[in-house]
Amino acid sequence: MSPSSYPSKLLENAVNEFAKLPGIGRKTALRLVLHLLKQEKEQVYKFADTVHHMRQEIMYCKSCYNISDSETCSICADMNRDHSTICVVESIRDVMAIESTQQFSGVYHVLGGVISPMDGIGPDDLTIAPLEEKIKNGSIKEVIFALSTTMEGDTTNFYLYKKFDKYNITTTTIARGVSIGDELEYTDEVTLGRSLINRLPFEKTI
Amino acid sequence: MSPSSYPSKLLENAVNEFAKLPGIGRKTALRLVLHLLKQEKEQVYKFADTVHHMRQEIMYCKSCYNISDSETCSICADMNRDHSTICVVESIRDVMAIESTQQFSGVYHVLGGVISPMDGIGPDDLTIAPLEEKIKNGSIKEVIFALSTTMEGDTTNFYLYKKFDKYNITTTTIARGVSIGDELEYTDEVTLGRSLINRLPFEKTI
Ligand SMILES: [Zn+2]
Ligand SMILES: [Zn+2]
Repeated sequence: MSPSSYPSKLLENAVNEFAKLPGIGRKTALRLVLHLLKQEKEQVYKFADTVHHMRQEIMYCKSCYNISDSETCSICADMNRDHSTICVVESIRDVMAIESTQQFSGVYHVLGGVISPMDGIGPDDLTIAPLEEKIKNGSIKEVIFALSTTMEGDTTNFYLYKKFDKYNITTTTIARGVSIGDELEYTDEVTLGRSLINRLPFEKTI
Repeated sequence: MSPSSYPSKLLENAVNEFAKLPGIGRKTALRLVLHLLKQEKEQVYKFADTVHHMRQEIMYCKSCYNISDSETCSICADMNRDHSTICVVESIRDVMAIESTQQFSGVYHVLGGVISPMDGIGPDDLTIAPLEEKIKNGSIKEVIFALSTTMEGDTTNFYLYKKFDKYNITTTTIARGVSIGDELEYTDEVTLGRSLINRLPFEKTI
């Protein structure tokens, strides 16, 4: 559709903004914007303000790097959880996926990705140093690796296993009920929950 | 995913807002929100402000009911266009679809839908009265019906044809190159452009 066919610059600007979102083409963007035009003004203001407010206020937990509404996330702040068991994940979405299984009562550490030389991501680009700091400080008994079953996930697993070998902790990895190549966040809750229960010492899996 | 698995209320609120949009499920909404979280604050504020501003400022043309940035839309305000030929369409998207063919130099009238007793939409729910007013006032020579080729579109065509029969105007309808049951806005530009060029007197099509 040629730019000149937009009857309104205000409409066109809004379509342009929506079309920047991943997986949203210009046709879909237009459909979404025309939908918003049909809603009550107050509802659309609420949509916009919620997005603005979220981006402005959201924080990253200074302990586990999960997103949070405060300096320490609700999981890290929960004293009923087992703070001696850390589940290491790639992303915030993986925390949410594991939480929804209701099979894990420890805490998390969000790496922010996996080691991927192809994408130029090395150990220093991830939150590995603060994770090591936590382990060094003592009270950690077990570190569970819950990374994707991809080559990069396996590489990261192995890197962390070797790095933390000198500390007096148990390293485990979630059971591979997940097909090789699948991403963790798309795994169904039952499989993911079971793979946590059936976790194995890391050295049994290499 | 259970509500409790959201690590942040700010995140959850934003996901809830996105999930209200048509065709956006909760998984997609989360993906979009996490994408926005990774963008620069200024970019996200721009997204939110553009949406807010659009809903606040946008107007409907007082002549043709197209959306507009001013009281009279850019099409109606364009004196190089033929103001004696009115193309009657259901929606703003249909105006955009026809404009993108670059085959039409008249003006539009946006009905706001079609007559559909099943959905409780009668003639009074559409902008038929102001259209008749324009015709009554004189200078209109031709009214082109460019409605969807559905039963409701045909019913509306026929209703308008009968209603405007008493005025000294030509009523035409776009050529049916479009498959019966197809919606106008999804028709490719070439077909749509050609169907405008090959338009027929309405009475030849009934
Ligand atoms: Zn935390
Ligand atoms: Zn207009």
